[in-house]
Amino acid sequence: MIKIKGGVAAPKDFKVAAINCGIKRKRKDIALIISTVPAVACGLFTQNRVKAAPILVTKEHLKKTIAQAIIVNSGNANCCTGEKGLKDAHLMAQAAAKELGFHKEDLLVASTGVIGKPLPMDKIKSAIPQLVKKLHKDSGSDVAEGIMTTDKVTKEIAVRVRIKGKDVAIGGVAKGAGMIHPNMATMLCFITTDAYITRRALKIALVNAVDKSFNAVSVDGDMSTNDCVLALANGSAGNKLLDKKDKEFAIFSDALAYITDYLAKAMIRDGEGATKFVEIIVKNTKTILDAKRIANKVATSTLFKTALFGEDPNWGRIAACAGSSGVIFDSDDLDIYIGDVRVVKNGEGSSKHNAEIKKLFKNREIDVTIDLNNGKKAYRMWTCDLSSDYVKINADYTT
Amino acid sequence: MIKIKGGVAAPKDFKVAAINCGIKRKRKDIALIISTVPAVACGLFTQNRVKAAPILVTKEHLKKTIAQAIIVNSGNANCCTGEKGLKDAHLMAQAAAKELGFHKEDLLVASTGVIGKPLPMDKIKSAIPQLVKKLHKDSGSDVAEGIMTTDKVTKEIAVRVRIKGKDVAIGGVAKGAGMIHPNMATMLCFITTDAYITRRALKIALVNAVDKSFNAVSVDGDMSTNDCVLALANGSAGNKLLDKKDKEFAIFSDALAYITDYLAKAMIRDGEGATKFVEIIVKNTKTILDAKRIANKVATSTLFKTALFGEDPNWGRIAACAGSSGVIFDSDDLDIYIGDVRVVKNGEGSSKHNAEIKKLFKNREIDVTIDLNNGKKAYRMWTCDLSSDYVKINADYTT
Repeated sequence: MIKIKGGVAAPKDFKVAAINCGIKRKRKDIALIISTVPAVACGLFTQNRVKAAPILVTKEHLKKTIAQAIIVNSGNANCCTGEKGLKDAHLMAQAAAKELGFHKEDLLVASTGVIGKPLPMDKIKSAIPQLVKKLHKDSGSDVAEGIMTTDKVTKEIAVRVRIKGKDVAIGGVAKGAGMIHPNMATMLCFITTDAYITRRALKIALVNAVDKSFNAVSVDGDMSTNDCVLALANGSAGNKLLDKKDKEFAIFSDALAYITDYLAKAMIRDGEGATKFVEIIVKNTKTILDAKRIANKVATSTLFKTALFGEDPNWGRIAACAGSSGVIFDSDDLDIYIGDVRVVKNGEGSSKHNAEIKKLFKNREIDVTIDLNNGKKAYRMWTCDLSSDYVKINADYTT
Repeated sequence: MIKIKGGVAAPKDFKVAAINCGIKRKRKDIALIISTVPAVACGLFTQNRVKAAPILVTKEHLKKTIAQAIIVNSGNANCCTGEKGLKDAHLMAQAAAKELGFHKEDLLVASTGVIGKPLPMDKIKSAIPQLVKKLHKDSGSDVAEGIMTTDKVTKEIAVRVRIKGKDVAIGGVAKGAGMIHPNMATMLCFITTDAYITRRALKIALVNAVDKSFNAVSVDGDMSTNDCVLALANGSAGNKLLDKKDKEFAIFSDALAYITDYLAKAMIRDGEGATKFVEIIVKNTKTILDAKRIANKVATSTLFKTALFGEDPNWGRIAACAGSSGVIFDSDDLDIYIGDVRVVKNGEGSSKHNAEIKKLFKNREIDVTIDLNNGKKAYRMWTCDLSSDYVKINADYTT
């Protein structure tokens, strides 16, 4: 597997564009990803009961299993917008389809931004012809910019692997940076590939990849109404059809997991106000769910996350999280490590490593391991700290 | 019922004291509450699996059902301190008992503060004689000060009610201000009363009172390792024995609930960095658990709480919380009110009240109502905002 340039436009027969249509003042706020040939398509969606209109439209269109384009805007989530919102999401697909000469159902729609405001459809509709005109192989980064909300950096990647004698490319783009929590933890991620692959295999690879990446991160414990991961595979690489039972499926699957891992980590590093990246490993639990619960409790603890920000090695808060997670264990079995240093052994803390731990907390990347010594299961999660900038960013998001 | 002065020292035959023993630099950090006659005693404790040593000792002593004193320190939680911690908690009870001429088992012990540091037992032991000498009816406020950690204000109250022809006093003292979340949400609360009441009735009244107060608040979603509510009833009011079946039980029960409500609200108003007090009501749900889940999700949403701090009427975040709570409902039935203003009707937001809502968000006290129009159950919770001061306070708590 090698990294290549081009992001979501890297795979063959994909073209993309992003421009400013006036939802935001200057930054690009509308983007289009198209495959010039029909592609198998699948998606994973927010489990929030309050779902944005574009999510509903995209889910409907995906029933066809084939799609050819994704139209997406940032700056407005088109959520809690009632009948009009639903109509607007349909119109967005329709307007793009008309300009592209596609069927409306070939268009997938996504929106991200503020909840509860109607989409400015006049701006969106009048931008679409220009957007289509700008479609190009070199505009992957424009799309990465066009889907940003509070993100500080763009998040995109592409890789090439060899499958059944052919070069296959996979590209990915994502946006963070707040309301990040399983399931889904992404807000938006789009995957393109020129692999010739069955829809079933694509879906399985996507579910596995997302489960260990976007579903294992938390910035702030809040689940978005607009989260979705969409994947398009157009078969232009010319490889023999790839299905789940093929041994090469692992190559594709691993490459896709590499992409979602990369994007998920980039999201956490760019988490709203984040100054630290933390990997939390909970191990030797009776069940994976036990490990998940504890990891999740630590990853969402404002006390732990503010201590991280302050580089204050207050590991007592980690112990408190483990204990309050609802998981039943004997606190006398509890070990906690910061990096390789065991700060709690058999439930008892030690201050002898304080200087060492203090130094570790100054790093940008910190590993926390919680060992229950109670079973054989484990779970890993990524999170960031909670800084004064997080509060600043979110205290006046709409105003 | 009338309010009276004196806090936990208000009921007959109670005396209290608090001094500085050197755990903190200057502020009072050790306190003693005694009844000069034996009292029925009961307690409610943190459900954290990681329990501080004093919690274990107090639970053991409460098996006797009778107690006569509470010794408590702030500045050090005596938690994750292993065998030595347990020995220290026993020693603390023993030293106070000896000086008071009580049995060791008559002493209840509590600690609050940093996790993972051994108690400075020399300081504590040498302070106890002076503490006992200072015992007085007028020192209720000293105790309120002596149990504070990051609290900015003391929290105490006392009331008098008429029960079976006699004046009965109930006093209460509590500390916040972080790691506040069900169950328990208090860190520490001590209740004293001169009511002559069965232990069973006292426990029932306490459970009911705590359930609607300390168990229905959240500052930061973190559960402490040291939380406890302890109640002592010494019978000195001279009323005829009060049991659960007596009609006057409601008078006692209501008065106790008034006290825990008052203290719980005071804790939220004094929540770390808090600038707002929010009452969240979730109503017309199928089950109380549904209502609880949604209330809890909103009360712990960093996005909602930072928007509150910024006085940014971003009600979309409330809708996102309801949807991601795990409760199954139809988003088309969802109504959301800020104060009396309906900002979401049948799942659809309206911006026409924006100016009005913006004004409401400037108040120190804000009511949020989430109506699922889906059943007949309801739940109420209190929380505060998440401010830049919260981050500041917790970023360097131990350093």
